[in-house]
Amino acid sequence: MGGDHGVSVVIPAVGRAANALKGRGVRFLLHGDEHAIEQALAKVPHAVQLCTIQHADRVVAMDEKPAQALRRGKGTSLWNAIEAVKDGKAQAIVSSGNTGALMAMSKLILRMAAPGLDRPAIVVSWPTAKGATTVLDMGANVECDAQRLTEFAIMGAAYHRALNGAERPTVGLLNVGSEDEKGHEDVKGAHRILRETALDLDYRGFVEGTDISRGTVDVVVTDGFTGNVALKTAEGLAGFFISELKASLTSSLRNKIGAAIAAPALRALRDRLTPPGGGPLLGLNGIVVKSHGGADARGFAEAIGMAADLAQSGFADEIARNLKRLTVVVSDQTGAEAERASE
Amino acid sequence: MGGDHGVSVVIPAVGRAANALKGRGVRFLLHGDEHAIEQALAKVPHAVQLCTIQHADRVVAMDEKPAQALRRGKGTSLWNAIEAVKDGKAQAIVSSGNTGALMAMSKLILRMAAPGLDRPAIVVSWPTAKGATTVLDMGANVECDAQRLTEFAIMGAAYHRALNGAERPTVGLLNVGSEDEKGHEDVKGAHRILRETALDLDYRGFVEGTDISRGTVDVVVTDGFTGNVALKTAEGLAGFFISELKASLTSSLRNKIGAAIAAPALRALRDRLTPPGGGPLLGLNGIVVKSHGGADARGFAEAIGMAADLAQSGFADEIARNLKRLTVVVSDQTGAEAERASE
Repeated sequence: MGGDHGVSVVIPAVGRAANALKGRGVRFLLHGDEHAIEQALAKVPHAVQLCTIQHADRVVAMDEKPAQALRRGKGTSLWNAIEAVKDGKAQAIVSSGNTGALMAMSKLILRMAAPGLDRPAIVVSWPTAKGATTVLDMGANVECDAQRLTEFAIMGAAYHRALNGAERPTVGLLNVGSEDEKGHEDVKGAHRILRETALDLDYRGFVEGTDISRGTVDVVVTDGFTGNVALKTAEGLAGFFISELKASLTSSLRNKIGAAIAAPALRALRDRLTPPGGGPLLGLNGIVVKSHGGADARGFAEAIGMAADLAQSGFADEIARNLKRLTVVVSDQTGAEAERASE
Repeated sequence: MGGDHGVSVVIPAVGRAANALKGRGVRFLLHGDEHAIEQALAKVPHAVQLCTIQHADRVVAMDEKPAQALRRGKGTSLWNAIEAVKDGKAQAIVSSGNTGALMAMSKLILRMAAPGLDRPAIVVSWPTAKGATTVLDMGANVECDAQRLTEFAIMGAAYHRALNGAERPTVGLLNVGSEDEKGHEDVKGAHRILRETALDLDYRGFVEGTDISRGTVDVVVTDGFTGNVALKTAEGLAGFFISELKASLTSSLRNKIGAAIAAPALRALRDRLTPPGGGPLLGLNGIVVKSHGGADARGFAEAIGMAADLAQSGFADEIARNLKRLTVVVSDQTGAEAERASE
C-alpha cells in the first residue's frame, strides 16, 4: 500500500519479480486492502499462484511521524508485514512506504542485531567504473565509536557478498589519510580492532574520499554523519555537473549539434550515475528492504530481487556469527584492560 | 625557490602579477638564491623596480618532513619569508613549497590567532553555479568542538568578504539535516553560539552536503574530518564523471563526431570544475597563501593576487576583532555555567 503509487506500482512489480526470480521458489505475502490487491493482481495472472494476501484495514500515511505511526501502528499493512518476518512467515520485507515509520517499527518488532546499535544502518551502492562500492552508514547513526564502525564493516561485507557474489569483499575505513596515525580516536580504534581481531574480513586499512568513486575497496565504512555529508555532497556535485554540462552543450549552435548527436550517450551517463531504487536497513534481526517512495514497477521489482538475494544467501547468519565473535573479542579486551588497570 | 619549478615559475608569475596589480602599490620581497633570481628577473624588466631580493643560501626540500624542516629551517628562504611577515617587512607570504613545512613554520613563527586552534584551517573555493562557496576546514583540524567551529565561521566569512567583495556573506553549518535537533553535540553547540552570540555574521543555520555545490550559502563550516572527506569524495566523483563522459562520447562513431563538435564546451566545463591554484591558511597571525606545487606562472600569479586582496582588505583585523568577541562571550558563558553548577 506504500509509496507514492501503492498497489498500482507494487503489484506490477510483483509480476516482474515473479518472472525475474522464476525457479528460485520465491513466494509473495501481500499486506493491505484485499479488494484493491485482487483487482491489481488480475492484470498479472502468472503471479497469482505465487501470492497470498493478508488483509489489513489500515495503512501508515507517508507523512505520519514515526512516534505517531508506532502508537497507532498495530494492524496496519506495514506493521503486519514486519511482524510476518519476525514470526518466520516471510524471510524479508520490501516496502516503499514511510521511511521513518519503517525504521521505527522494524527496530521495535525485529530488534537490533547488536546490543549498542542505535538505529539500522543505511547502506548505499555507489556507482564506480568497476561496478559499485558498498558504503555505510549513510546517516542513521550520527555518532559511532570504534565498535560501532567495526559492526558496520561486518554488516557491509556480508551485504556486499550477498548482493555482488564477491567471495571475499575488501573493506576500507574512511579517513583523512592512509597512515596509521591519521584521524580521530574512533577510526583509529576501529582500525586496531579490524586489524587485530580474527574476523572473517579482508580488511585493507584506511581509505580516503577519492577511493569511493574509484572502487579501491568493495566496502567503505564510516559514521552516519560523514557518510551522509559525503553522499549529499556527491548528489549536489552530480546535479551541478549535469546542469553545467547541459548549459555548456546548448551555449552555441555548434555545441547544440554536437549534443544532439551525442544525446543517447549523455542519457546513458546520467542513468549510470543515478543511485539504485532501493536499499536494505542493516543491523536488524531480519531483512528489511526500503524501496524509494517514488519508485516505478521496475525499481520496486529490483528491490524485491535484492530482498530475495539477501534472503537466499547466508547474509543474516554471517552477520550474526561475526557480530558474536566481535562481542566476545571486545569484552575480552575490555576485561584485559580492566585487569591491567587494576594491577 | 619552492614548488616543482622554483624561480622559473615564480619570477614570471611576479611579472604577471606586477601587471595585474598595477596601481595598487604592491611590491615584492623575493627570498632565495640571489643569482638565480636576478637572472630570471632580467626577463621581466617591468617588474624589476618593484622587487627587493633577500638572499638565502638554503632551501627547504619538497620532501622534507615538517619536524626536520623546523629543526634546520632557520636561514632557509621559506623561514626568511615567513619571518618577514612577522617583522612587518611583508604583509603576506606566497609559497608553492613544501606544505607541511609551510604549516609548521608558519605556526611556530607567526603563532595561531586563537588560543585553542590546533593548526591553520585549510579553506577551499568550491565552484558553484553562482560563483564559489567558501568551505573550511578541509582537513587540518580533525576534531573540532563548538568553539572551534565558531572560529571557522568567523574566519571563513572574513575570507569570503575579502576575496569576493560580498558585504555580508551568509554562513551555514554543515549537518545531516536542517532541524535544530539534528547532528552531534559539537555542531549543535556551534549552532547555539552562532545564533545567540552578537558576532558580526549573517548566520543561516544548518546546511547539508547538497548545499555546497548549490551555493545555498556563501560560507560552509565543518570540521576537518568531514570537510576532507567531502572534498576528496567530490574529487573522486568528478574524476569518475569526466572519465565516464569521455568513454560515453567515444563509444561509437556517432558519439565521437558529437564529442568532437562539442569539444571546446567540454574543455570549458572541465576547467570550470577544476579547483583554483592556491588558497590561504586561515587562523594565523599573518596572511599565508599556499600555491600548488605544480602551479604554472598563471596559477602562481593568481595566488599572489589573492594574497594582495587579503592584505589590502580589513581581513586580518576583522578576524582578530571577532575572535576576541567570541572569546569574551564564551568565557562569560563558561563562567555562568560554572556559577550555575556551584549553586
